[in-house]
Amino acid sequence: MSGEQGERALLGQIRARAAQASRGGLRLGIGDDCALLRLRPGEELAVTTDLSIAGRHFRLDWHPPESVGHRALARGLSDLAAMGARPVAAFLSLGLPRQLTQAKGRCSPWSARFLDGLLHLAEAHKTPLAGGDLAESPVALADIVLAGAVPRGKALLRSGARPGHLLYVTGALGGAAAGLAHLAELAAALPESQSDRPRPRRIPKKLEAQLAPHLYPQPRIAQGLWLVRHGAASAAIDLSDGLSTDLAHLCQESGAAAEVDAAALPIHPAATLAQALNGGEDYELLFTAGPSVRLPRAIAGVAIIRIGRILKPRPGRPAVTLITAHGSQPLEPHGWEHFS
Amino acid sequence: MSGEQGERALLGQIRARAAQASRGGLRLGIGDDCALLRLRPGEELAVTTDLSIAGRHFRLDWHPPESVGHRALARGLSDLAAMGARPVAAFLSLGLPRQLTQAKGRCSPWSARFLDGLLHLAEAHKTPLAGGDLAESPVALADIVLAGAVPRGKALLRSGARPGHLLYVTGALGGAAAGLAHLAELAAALPESQSDRPRPRRIPKKLEAQLAPHLYPQPRIAQGLWLVRHGAASAAIDLSDGLSTDLAHLCQESGAAAEVDAAALPIHPAATLAQALNGGEDYELLFTAGPSVRLPRAIAGVAIIRIGRILKPRPGRPAVTLITAHGSQPLEPHGWEHFS
Repeated sequence: MSGEQGERALLGQIRARAAQASRGGLRLGIGDDCALLRLRPGEELAVTTDLSIAGRHFRLDWHPPESVGHRALARGLSDLAAMGARPVAAFLSLGLPRQLTQAKGRCSPWSARFLDGLLHLAEAHKTPLAGGDLAESPVALADIVLAGAVPRGKALLRSGARPGHLLYVTGALGGAAAGLAHLAELAAALPESQSDRPRPRRIPKKLEAQLAPHLYPQPRIAQGLWLVRHGAASAAIDLSDGLSTDLAHLCQESGAAAEVDAAALPIHPAATLAQALNGGEDYELLFTAGPSVRLPRAIAGVAIIRIGRILKPRPGRPAVTLITAHGSQPLEPHGWEHFS
Repeated sequence: MSGEQGERALLGQIRARAAQASRGGLRLGIGDDCALLRLRPGEELAVTTDLSIAGRHFRLDWHPPESVGHRALARGLSDLAAMGARPVAAFLSLGLPRQLTQAKGRCSPWSARFLDGLLHLAEAHKTPLAGGDLAESPVALADIVLAGAVPRGKALLRSGARPGHLLYVTGALGGAAAGLAHLAELAAALPESQSDRPRPRRIPKKLEAQLAPHLYPQPRIAQGLWLVRHGAASAAIDLSDGLSTDLAHLCQESGAAAEVDAAALPIHPAATLAQALNGGEDYELLFTAGPSVRLPRAIAGVAIIRIGRILKPRPGRPAVTLITAHGSQPLEPHGWEHFS
């Protein structure tokens, strides 16, 4: 099978599988020059793109293909969640080495398993795959575009936090970093692959739960929608780079400072404090709300925890301060995660 | 400078330059989790993504970086033109080897020249760069997303051609393929680069006009908008893969056949008939209109030429027939262009 034939076969497969999925605001999907999307009256459009490249955002020899597909889409969905947008459509530009589109013995091609992971998460969030592009590439890569809808003027921005507002996170922190550390140990314990074909490790059953926050993070779409519907949040960002980095972004865009109470942090049971502070890819929401806003303990089954407050920026005051039992210290942005 | 620093510097550069450009329907650009776009009442959204990868869609040792940026954006704009949509915003996901973001002596980095070409075309079409993503990558690649707006239910589709409708193209055909052939000759005449740094050739002045249809194709946005405004076209597609292939797509989606009159084809002065039929990347529009529709000779300065008609599909009749002075023959889809 030539590269071109393999590409066409994969395109046909994507088209067939995308056609089975829910459509919602999608009026015209794969097969024309553009997809056509329709919003409801009074909505505006949120768009985000996320590029995932082998060796940088995932490793072919570490990550099961289903996880690569899931994580690529989760990054984009999480950006929509941070704005409080409902997903309308996803687009996938996929560049793959030829070998990854070909079956290997009785195993499905890598590309089919990648699509399984991506489309499973898409279906869970009723997000149709509306288009994209496909090319042979010396390195595996996926660029995901998410289009979402949000009532006009109601999107959660990074810039709305004001001194006196309280700081919240959803779920637990550090689980993805702890899972990644376990995955790295697992990979180091096995012999180096001498083949040019990637061999994603079989994940032992007992490790699956520990690795899940890294392999299959859950974007907080329902929680973002709740915050918009109730006008509850003044600012929001998703925790993709880690609390220390993303909180610094939020403070910068809001022209504010913040303090975080270490004792209040919902640290994932498998994680350390450092992983909770600096580990990326938890894809929880970090948001602020005015002091008079009453928030529930959980939204759609996910805990909402108050972890600190927004302060006035002052000369000599760090942008973010961490308060521990031993006093307070600057919390520098250290969340940036590489595989290479 | 580390890869991470280089990436941040490039991100800052993109953000600053994108902020200078026109904004139109863009309510919130680079700097938040998503960009926010607003459509006018009664509009729907057209979205397209196009992936360009070094070695496949362009060559670092053949194409000036400005041309790579221009062509990447032109592909997406041309998809909007084919739907008759007005551009609202562009998104750029860019993966680059570290060396391409670094200056080399007195030369600007490749990435800056790439952005020059992309933003120059974006500005010509009043299309703000609204977001994207950036990563270090072993291979240079750019995924371009275009969001456009079109009055609800008025988008030009591939599927609307009916027997008896007439077939038209804008501009001239084959110029891009002829330009590419010249570029290849030019590259072959120069010694192979032994360096791992790409060395785009200096294009001799006298060749610039010949190469322009390949290096700097002009998407037919104004012509697509005109066709929608006048309700003139029944179907449309852009000529990205070549007339023989794209007409086959249009016939397939419309459930129709077609015949093309070779003598009527507006062949670019530098091109052969084969290049006009099968050469890709002219980015002209191919469209159909009912027999009673009167079209002008030119729209916004670009010629409109009738080249054939739509027929009923019949058993034994080829999907597309080419009529020449020597009789008629099937026109097989042969437009698919590789550098690799």
